[in-house]
Amino acid sequence: MGLDETAQKPHDRLSAHLAADMERVNALIRRRMASEHAPRIPEVTAHLVEAGGKRLRPMLTLAAARLCGYEGDHHIRLAATVEFIHTATLLHDDVVDESAQRRGRPTANLLWDNKSSVLVGDYLFSRSFQLMVETGSLRVLDILSNASATIAEGEVLQLSAAQDLRTDEAIYMKVIRGKTAALFSAATEVGGVIAGAPEEQVRALFTYGDALGIAFQIVDDLLDYGGSTATIGKNVGDDFRERKLTLPVIKAVAKATPEEREFWKRVIEKGDQREGDLDRAMALLASHGAMEETRAEALGWAQTAKAALAVLPDHALRSMLADLADYVVARVN
Amino acid sequence: MGLDETAQKPHDRLSAHLAADMERVNALIRRRMASEHAPRIPEVTAHLVEAGGKRLRPMLTLAAARLCGYEGDHHIRLAATVEFIHTATLLHDDVVDESAQRRGRPTANLLWDNKSSVLVGDYLFSRSFQLMVETGSLRVLDILSNASATIAEGEVLQLSAAQDLRTDEAIYMKVIRGKTAALFSAATEVGGVIAGAPEEQVRALFTYGDALGIAFQIVDDLLDYGGSTATIGKNVGDDFRERKLTLPVIKAVAKATPEEREFWKRVIEKGDQREGDLDRAMALLASHGAMEETRAEALGWAQTAKAALAVLPDHALRSMLADLADYVVARVN
Repeated sequence: MGLDETAQKPHDRLSAHLAADMERVNALIRRRMASEHAPRIPEVTAHLVEAGGKRLRPMLTLAAARLCGYEGDHHIRLAATVEFIHTATLLHDDVVDESAQRRGRPTANLLWDNKSSVLVGDYLFSRSFQLMVETGSLRVLDILSNASATIAEGEVLQLSAAQDLRTDEAIYMKVIRGKTAALFSAATEVGGVIAGAPEEQVRALFTYGDALGIAFQIVDDLLDYGGSTATIGKNVGDDFRERKLTLPVIKAVAKATPEEREFWKRVIEKGDQREGDLDRAMALLASHGAMEETRAEALGWAQTAKAALAVLPDHALRSMLADLADYVVARVN
Repeated sequence: MGLDETAQKPHDRLSAHLAADMERVNALIRRRMASEHAPRIPEVTAHLVEAGGKRLRPMLTLAAARLCGYEGDHHIRLAATVEFIHTATLLHDDVVDESAQRRGRPTANLLWDNKSSVLVGDYLFSRSFQLMVETGSLRVLDILSNASATIAEGEVLQLSAAQDLRTDEAIYMKVIRGKTAALFSAATEVGGVIAGAPEEQVRALFTYGDALGIAFQIVDDLLDYGGSTATIGKNVGDDFRERKLTLPVIKAVAKATPEEREFWKRVIEKGDQREGDLDRAMALLASHGAMEETRAEALGWAQTAKAALAVLPDHALRSMLADLADYVVARVN
């Protein structure tokens, strides 16, 4: 999700500060990923879990727990839990996205991957479930089970929201909470809960994670219509080609003239996209101020995230989390 | 799974005895399946959850809890949990099986189903997770999280075990524990746990569910080479055509002459199946006594299931569970 390009920044400082914990998380992930009976599992997950991803979500859990003075072991389990859930959803998204992109013509290899993606994803979910049960905290289980439901519901909602011009900002928010923010907020909240932090701080950690996740996803969706390929790690217009209704488009559709509305219907609902359509879409986003408004919303969420940190202990990790919120929106600021 | 044809038998007596509880389970399932945000969910699950399936697994949970004198509400939640897990695995199996059968040529409709199957399956898993957390029993969560891992691992193992003549009886047992027995045994065990039954009884309930599930699956695999279509609800030879290594074949392969081994290699490993091959396979299973031995194993597991019930309270439900074990193997006895 494009945090690595200027990675000497807050993410790296968090990494350095939490290096000892993160090493334990990585070791736990490797141990629990292994399956005596089904050697294919590490094979499938290796490129996802082992490939040295940014580990942003587990880092949020570790940071929240440490920031609240936690000295036990359970934050390691919870960080691994969060990474397993993230990896499992990536595997299942692959099935969903690849199927859509190749329009009915998957290769045998793709099908094989589909099977493995579904079942290995399920395996990682079940492993994450075992890990969180080991913490013995019913409250943590409650938070993570609710987050799982929000994630799953958001994914299903996205299926029907895509390619449908009636998708509005309220639906968009539910989709991105499911897609991104629910796991961010669960990651930070369980860190506070396991540390036994006061309620006010636990709530603040939830709000921080939620707002950070929303800012993160809005920026991602914005860059799809404006970033350079180098900045966003994918091609400009991918969402357009996949006919996803992201925030900039939703805003432009809301202000569309009848003739513009016909354009959006053709390219998004009917999927009839022609040479020059992406340029026209970008021009419409600009002319209606949709890019600018979307950008302002992302900055607003980053502010919300930072403001939430006020009630947390004054600590090096707190500044790093604040910087992380700035960093997430820096690409569009 | 073919229990309905003579359904006035133990399964119906259980249904009648547990009718009030089961009605509450059905109501809970309907409530928790619904999604305010994603109306597609009940659409996809309706034919699975609502279609009046046998509800065998939730009935096992209810029976175990009631048999142990439980008077609370949590058995209703756990029964719904077990049914949600079962339905979710069916949805994910669809993706896996349909992909395999159509060999790289799914229709657009099939792909749409794949997406929905994956995501709605995940949704049901997350719902089951919420339900079990509501019981507040860490032991129940431990049992169900371990069962989930066994199920997922078994499914992945089956991917590599199919079409591989090295698959032996030990691997077969792991596969069917994952595929069937793990959820049966978790269903009965959590019933005892939630009732606060003595350890000895909880262990007995586990053993009963485990052995019942194994017997159930072995019978299913046996009938694939010997039952009538009416009895088994599918066509004779489906496993053969899908090149699955089930117990009868594993036993026949173990005793194969070099020439017979070449046959198995061709039809199972290479998938080169010709007119008359199924008949030849069935003749080989008969000539090596593989059918007879498999049948004896199924009966043995049914005996194990019944014997386990001895330490449980003398109760109408106990006789029904014993009869159910007999009934499961009656089709091959």
